[in-house]
Amino acid sequence: MIEHPITIALFGCGAVGLYYGARLASHGNKVYFLLRSDYDVIRRQGIIVESCTGNFVLESVNAIRDSSALPQVDLVIIAAKTTVNHDLPRQIKPCMGDQTSILTLQNGLGNEEFFASHFGSDRVMGGLCFVCINRTAPGKVKHTAHGQIVMGRYGKPIDIDTRQLASEFQDSGIPCRVTDNLSLARWQKLVWNIPFNGLSVAEGSIDVSRILKDSRLVENARQLMSEVVETANALGYRIEREYIEENIQRTLQMGAYEPSTLIDFKMGREIEVESLFGEPLRAAQKVGISTPHLEKLYRKLVDLNPVSSP
Amino acid sequence: MIEHPITIALFGCGAVGLYYGARLASHGNKVYFLLRSDYDVIRRQGIIVESCTGNFVLESVNAIRDSSALPQVDLVIIAAKTTVNHDLPRQIKPCMGDQTSILTLQNGLGNEEFFASHFGSDRVMGGLCFVCINRTAPGKVKHTAHGQIVMGRYGKPIDIDTRQLASEFQDSGIPCRVTDNLSLARWQKLVWNIPFNGLSVAEGSIDVSRILKDSRLVENARQLMSEVVETANALGYRIEREYIEENIQRTLQMGAYEPSTLIDFKMGREIEVESLFGEPLRAAQKVGISTPHLEKLYRKLVDLNPVSSP
Repeated sequence: MIEHPITIALFGCGAVGLYYGARLASHGNKVYFLLRSDYDVIRRQGIIVESCTGNFVLESVNAIRDSSALPQVDLVIIAAKTTVNHDLPRQIKPCMGDQTSILTLQNGLGNEEFFASHFGSDRVMGGLCFVCINRTAPGKVKHTAHGQIVMGRYGKPIDIDTRQLASEFQDSGIPCRVTDNLSLARWQKLVWNIPFNGLSVAEGSIDVSRILKDSRLVENARQLMSEVVETANALGYRIEREYIEENIQRTLQMGAYEPSTLIDFKMGREIEVESLFGEPLRAAQKVGISTPHLEKLYRKLVDLNPVSSP
Repeated sequence: MIEHPITIALFGCGAVGLYYGARLASHGNKVYFLLRSDYDVIRRQGIIVESCTGNFVLESVNAIRDSSALPQVDLVIIAAKTTVNHDLPRQIKPCMGDQTSILTLQNGLGNEEFFASHFGSDRVMGGLCFVCINRTAPGKVKHTAHGQIVMGRYGKPIDIDTRQLASEFQDSGIPCRVTDNLSLARWQKLVWNIPFNGLSVAEGSIDVSRILKDSRLVENARQLMSEVVETANALGYRIEREYIEENIQRTLQMGAYEPSTLIDFKMGREIEVESLFGEPLRAAQKVGISTPHLEKLYRKLVDLNPVSSP
């Protein structure tokens, strides 16, 4: 049973983790932040949030270096890059009790499945973050737009715990809605992420406005979206074709936005090529949908990926 | 078009790779062996095969250290551990031409899918090896029993190329049969691999005869097999329940056989925990089949796995 105040262990304290963690902690929840590089700075100064909805500082932070020091918690939140998933089960284990839930806020496909295989499907939830946010310095994040989370259970409809958790997010100043079909929501998000995160890196480090100004790239984006929609529909996740043009229109309003994958790439960090591109491609191949543009994009990103893979 | 003599690049020169590669090369095919630790020894002495069907030495070996020195080949054979898959696409790329096929002889689930996502589904084939074989020294393998390969195409029925390749294996002294349903064959093999490879490690490094002598472990093996059969059937791969007892009976005749996973474990090498246990478990969870024994086994193996994951 998830009830306020919630005891939370937060793994992955990049921009997304620090931001949502700080909001949940400010509302009186007990949030343990698993920290490495930012540990000293955050112990000294707390977490500084510059937000378009109002700045705040979380002064007293439960900063932890080693997860074996954690008590059993009500909820584990995972906001780490998907490229480090293989390291997480061992770190998470010490704080897992019989009733502990897991919420992954990660990108793309395969994450709920991965944590379900380690800790059981019944306790896994997923959340999609629609937010523009950056870590601008150690312990400091800048939230520039949006912020909503769409939350659901892995492989089944929402229940009372999902509703409770969504309310708790909402009460902490995080717009949150629930969905009975988390997989559909993930595929809908991929309709945008695959073309825009992908092409922004593959076409020479360009923001989304530069994709939209180049007719060849807009055409490529439409083809990629079309392949994603067709795959989702073949898997039983119904997405209308109109959704493609809606996404193009929505992106026109984003200006020179840089997707997270591009920011990772420009910083020389490993990009999330498997969860965002490889898993959807393999899902398409499995149901026999031809996705030549996605195949080409995936292989280009694998080649460009700065780290030699996980 | 696959025609004798075939030009082959062989990645993964452990026991399985050296054995099948040596047979194919002895029959006049041009096999490039990608070697690291065994390079010098094999250049000097060739590949020594002690086989229950007759000893032989492959004296002149096309030993290669670096795949960028390869020409384009007719066929890539992958016999590497599945734990290194993430490193292979870049190594394979230099020898891939438009017509190059890929045959993975690896264990478990997810391998055809992985190489299909990198190189296209149309060129991917898979083979299941039913063989008892060990690398006894650098450049030296000992083949003690069996040796058959069951071969099929990824996601579709066999074609003329699959038949040609199977004939070529057969002509090289490798018993080989083809299947129109490679995935079914993979699930059938898992009915044995999951209990026996898994319990041999999880229950304290014991051979299959010790599993069969302990009534608690036999019961556990049956429960695991039953979960695998139920999952396969839910996925549309029809396996009769009688197959469970047939496997128990067959294993009784194996004596003190040590599964490959146990040999890896005893040597302190990483075990193939994802392809053999994690992928089947996630497949079960995806179709809503309850597999408590497989979950427990998987988590125990993850904990025991000597390397901290790929």
